[in-house]
Amino acid sequence: MVQNPARRTALTDAAIDVLAREGARGLTFRAVDVQAGVPAGTASNYFANRDDLLHQTARHIHHRLTPDPAVIAELLRAPRDRALVTALMHDLLGRITAERAGYLALLELRLEATRRPDLRAELTGTIREQLEANIAYHVGEGLPGDRETVVVLYLAMTGLLVEHLTLPEVLGVDGLAALVGTMVERIVPSA
Amino acid sequence: MVQNPARRTALTDAAIDVLAREGARGLTFRAVDVQAGVPAGTASNYFANRDDLLHQTARHIHHRLTPDPAVIAELLRAPRDRALVTALMHDLLGRITAERAGYLALLELRLEATRRPDLRAELTGTIREQLEANIAYHVGEGLPGDRETVVVLYLAMTGLLVEHLTLPEVLGVDGLAALVGTMVERIVPSA
Repeated sequence: MVQNPARRTALTDAAIDVLAREGARGLTFRAVDVQAGVPAGTASNYFANRDDLLHQTARHIHHRLTPDPAVIAELLRAPRDRALVTALMHDLLGRITAERAGYLALLELRLEATRRPDLRAELTGTIREQLEANIAYHVGEGLPGDRETVVVLYLAMTGLLVEHLTLPEVLGVDGLAALVGTMVERIVPSA
Repeated sequence: MVQNPARRTALTDAAIDVLAREGARGLTFRAVDVQAGVPAGTASNYFANRDDLLHQTARHIHHRLTPDPAVIAELLRAPRDRALVTALMHDLLGRITAERAGYLALLELRLEATRRPDLRAELTGTIREQLEANIAYHVGEGLPGDRETVVVLYLAMTGLLVEHLTLPEVLGVDGLAALVGTMVERIVPSA
């Protein structure tokens, strides 16, 4: 395996774009090479096989979707109230909208995971870990609500993101920020 | 176009299974013929082209996911309280779990809709119509909550279904019914 980290990142970035545009079935070494603009055969030097490509792409998506610690630290200078939860959800919505290809690629990988037990185990581990980290964070930072609050909010945000990124006119783009506010208001207790 | 309704249904049923198993890219006339166990060339007599196949399959999925009016009528003999909303959500969860292939096929079509404006328009129309019908129904039947209650509950159920059908171990299968109860309790007002 070749170990040029910048090129590896360029290849997994390309894999995300291919997944979002062509679906899981379109993700081949050849398509990744073309998308990354590198010589044919390059991807096969970086990934042992197609499973390895799927796994590394899944990890790279999670890396790209991770919040910026500086932004979160800045947000957390505010009082621990419902408005802060709304601000955190707006940050999440903004990040995912900016990383549209990454989130669509993750949905493709979720569907591919129904056919590949190894990928399913990998994605399950990552997403469960993130959810548990979000719960620990929310409760630990003294944000309003309990474990169940975070789980229900996570599910509602997942539904909103799936709807917004696949069929944006169902919820409407104009009212989206207000809808996030409504969602927090209905799910998170006021204090 | 040939007009044998039973065979058309068998072909769109087969298309749902192919979509769920192979993804949108795997949905070809040939794959539908094989899945339905009919002679090669049959699907091409029932669908004008691949777009037509996608559209008819989308409509057939919505038909298969529609609740049984008799079951709903029976549920609606209960008082109009939060327990009734929970019962309706359990019916939805049970129906979608039984129609796993149909819901996975719908997720495939949502992703395919990001690449096909006509399919996106069709799915947007259907899903918006259903959401508006659910809102009118909930409010009209005097169930607790308002328009926003139904929208937030719809989003949370969407998130739960996507999670449960793609990565079932994230939420866990054992706790799923209780989670639906918690979700209703947190989103729907008590009266």
